[in-house]
Amino acid sequence: MPKSISIISSVLLFFYFFLSSFQLTASEFQKSNPSFLGKFAQKIQQKPYQYETKYYTQTLDHFSFLDLPTFQQRYLISTDHWSGPKELGPVFLYCGNEGDIEWFASNTGFVWEIAPRFGAMVVFPEHRYYGKSMPFGSREKAYKDSASLAYLTAEQALADFAVLVTDLKRNLSAEACPVVLFGGSYGGMLAAWMRLKYPHIAIGALASSAPILQFENIVPPETFYDIVSNDFKRESVSCFDYIKNSWEAIEAEGKKADGLSHLTRTFHLCQKLNSTDDLSNWLSSAYSYLAMVDYPYPSEFLMPLPANPIKEVCKKIDDHPHEAGVLERIFSGVSIYYNYTGTVDCFDLGDDPHGMSGWDWQACTEMVMPMSSSKHNSMFPAYDYNYSSFQDQCYKDYAVKPRNRWITTEFGGHDLKTTLKAFGSNIIFSNGLLDPWSGGSVLQNVSETVIALITKLGAHHIDLRAATNEDPDWLLEQRTSEINVIKEWINIYYQEKMTVLSM
Amino acid sequence: MPKSISIISSVLLFFYFFLSSFQLTASEFQKSNPSFLGKFAQKIQQKPYQYETKYYTQTLDHFSFLDLPTFQQRYLISTDHWSGPKELGPVFLYCGNEGDIEWFASNTGFVWEIAPRFGAMVVFPEHRYYGKSMPFGSREKAYKDSASLAYLTAEQALADFAVLVTDLKRNLSAEACPVVLFGGSYGGMLAAWMRLKYPHIAIGALASSAPILQFENIVPPETFYDIVSNDFKRESVSCFDYIKNSWEAIEAEGKKADGLSHLTRTFHLCQKLNSTDDLSNWLSSAYSYLAMVDYPYPSEFLMPLPANPIKEVCKKIDDHPHEAGVLERIFSGVSIYYNYTGTVDCFDLGDDPHGMSGWDWQACTEMVMPMSSSKHNSMFPAYDYNYSSFQDQCYKDYAVKPRNRWITTEFGGHDLKTTLKAFGSNIIFSNGLLDPWSGGSVLQNVSETVIALITKLGAHHIDLRAATNEDPDWLLEQRTSEINVIKEWINIYYQEKMTVLSM
Repeated sequence: MPKSISIISSVLLFFYFFLSSFQLTASEFQKSNPSFLGKFAQKIQQKPYQYETKYYTQTLDHFSFLDLPTFQQRYLISTDHWSGPKELGPVFLYCGNEGDIEWFASNTGFVWEIAPRFGAMVVFPEHRYYGKSMPFGSREKAYKDSASLAYLTAEQALADFAVLVTDLKRNLSAEACPVVLFGGSYGGMLAAWMRLKYPHIAIGALASSAPILQFENIVPPETFYDIVSNDFKRESVSCFDYIKNSWEAIEAEGKKADGLSHLTRTFHLCQKLNSTDDLSNWLSSAYSYLAMVDYPYPSEFLMPLPANPIKEVCKKIDDHPHEAGVLERIFSGVSIYYNYTGTVDCFDLGDDPHGMSGWDWQACTEMVMPMSSSKHNSMFPAYDYNYSSFQDQCYKDYAVKPRNRWITTEFGGHDLKTTLKAFGSNIIFSNGLLDPWSGGSVLQNVSETVIALITKLGAHHIDLRAATNEDPDWLLEQRTSEINVIKEWINIYYQEKMTVLSM
Repeated sequence: MPKSISIISSVLLFFYFFLSSFQLTASEFQKSNPSFLGKFAQKIQQKPYQYETKYYTQTLDHFSFLDLPTFQQRYLISTDHWSGPKELGPVFLYCGNEGDIEWFASNTGFVWEIAPRFGAMVVFPEHRYYGKSMPFGSREKAYKDSASLAYLTAEQALADFAVLVTDLKRNLSAEACPVVLFGGSYGGMLAAWMRLKYPHIAIGALASSAPILQFENIVPPETFYDIVSNDFKRESVSCFDYIKNSWEAIEAEGKKADGLSHLTRTFHLCQKLNSTDDLSNWLSSAYSYLAMVDYPYPSEFLMPLPANPIKEVCKKIDDHPHEAGVLERIFSGVSIYYNYTGTVDCFDLGDDPHGMSGWDWQACTEMVMPMSSSKHNSMFPAYDYNYSSFQDQCYKDYAVKPRNRWITTEFGGHDLKTTLKAFGSNIIFSNGLLDPWSGGSVLQNVSETVIALITKLGAHHIDLRAATNEDPDWLLEQRTSEINVIKEWINIYYQEKMTVLSM
């Protein structure tokens, strides 16, 4: 049993942004960075779903003809319930995102659970540069420098999926079988973008918690932290206030003689605190992740947590004797997140042993999502996003220049109502409004076939998770809607097919 | 005045395929290869339309983050008739194809002529690696080897257009102005693909003579040469027969002692013929180009030619004394193509001084268009397309491996009726059925907004050419239809815009 856990022993996508909005020093980034893959990999001791693991020889650069080595892309596949090519059995393709694909497979029960009733094949291709899908033969070589990381982009990943599924279908004589895309978070963005960019390959996409509008100035940069803050405020205004006031208290304490030692003791840190920023980041991370996984039942998505974890955190923060200090309140609150099992003796804000993560690279290249923290609505320290210093930092860290306008040029985003209405079809944007990423997603129907399914009480892609006995009605309803829409896509496809065949 | 002209002193796109379908030796390719740019550049002594020439600092690889030098992309722009951002004046964007953009601008009168009535800005961006838009600072460096040529792909070119027009519009505060795409031949393919891949950037595309289906096995590989052959047959069955029989006659003659010398004299060649293949290629080229530019009025698109040049060629072939040999007939026929002005004393089948052309590279990488010549329907020597030897040859020539399935994976093409109907909109595929490339294009309406405008008597993108006094009614009608459809796209866009603005 571990005696300490590092800062964020389990982390979620987009983590980088979260931290980057507070401070832009590379060392901090690195320190608090995702140790996502390794740690999660340990968790997957058994695979809850049945599949085969295969590898596909993939082109490293689909868009140039440099003489580059191919790489082995891992994919998980199950044809157990597939009704086969003659029946035009569908292919359910999960767009692997920034992590080990086995972890996504384990945490995307919805796809596995509905596949049998659709007679669908299930395929989970891994995203390049994650898990075991490493160009240049190893993680070390793939992550060596900006030249080796150069091909880690969303466009290349989408082309991987396109090439893989086209070839898979050809080999199974299943060219006519419809493909339906699924994805959550960055994977949801990929699913939506793939439907837009490869509509000839996939008939529709369920894009869950996909913040495709979190770029440039499309949504206000304060959106994310405002939602996190509101999640806490709705549980308890006093809890919100305690947190909002805690930053100053921490800073004041840190300035005192022996203040850092006192903070170290108060927060049960294993090593003596070097700066109050480290502590603030650690706390901020917890709040944001709590907002993402504020599920109505106990879960272990990021951390072992109780149902409605924000409510529990706020209970701890609020339920202290009147005279208790804000620091004690905060500590007992975040302990819900960092130590719900009660097995941790001290907390380690130490370095991430895994070094540069793939998402850091993606954030410093094309996934440039501006984020600020507003002075009034947010409970976080106020912060104004500064692109120029972000840019400088990326160049310093990775010798790479971000292209902050590229994503909207390549995939659109501005003026979505006019454009997506006119050209897109068959996309479900599903979001839970508790999820701080929902603010950057599509929350209104764009057309008859580009629709938004919203739940007020949902958090980060809860709809993609496996069914539980505690699923509330609104979640059951959301999933039923999704299933019905997917059914309709497939039926319309079959009808079209029949019409063409009978012509 | 030139005393000799080289084989194909003016050449058209897709030239490579034409030759490749006959013989696959690299030396022949190279020899007969397009000297397109240089030669055409000489022709453009004055520019018939008014525009400014500008340069845009362009990203060399949009899809990776290698630390590569940018390059200067040339574009021609006219805002003379633009109604401006407040009026949401449209942007007419011609998708530059494989040649000097000034030449395309000169030969695309339609766009210039209709722009004023739309209050449209006109932009002609040049395709990377052509004309003056050379990566690495010079043509020599850009064409040095497969590593320098690696970024010459259609996807990169489309991204260039997308980035350029997005930036242009931003700088003119014209973000809300609708973009309409135009393109002919490979440029038409780019226009159609750009509408499919960047629908958020362009509201519609006029894709003239765009053989987007000339890949893999989507259309029969014999299509192209069958159409050329039919173009001759419809003018004169005997002409078709003479040509069909000429290959054997040439070969037989070549086998005789002094046969090559005799052929050299008969065809007025400047240098002694080395092989009958060289002669056959020279003749075949003429027939195919004649089919492409079989316009109903005199033109100088490829060569100075009379109206209905195939009719004239066949007249020459047919109108000989009964006892005239087939070789004499053929020579007087192709002289219409190669020497209509009567100024050429001898013909030079010699080397192309320009070496490897960009289109050769594109054909050997992603633009893999299988072409055969059928034994029965075609007047050309029978030939079965052989991908494996094509592949070998490309590797030998350019150290590059073609990806023959990539274009359909990236842009679609198979099962067009089901897929394009469901996802595409606002594309006009215009074709003239005399054009041998029409067979690989879209000849039937796919949906209400993806439509085919066909003229029985049109040749290669005649609709994009400037109006002439001799334009037949069917051409006037085709252009009127195109103008009306484009008007409708723009009106619907304006209505959408109003609805959104008033919401």
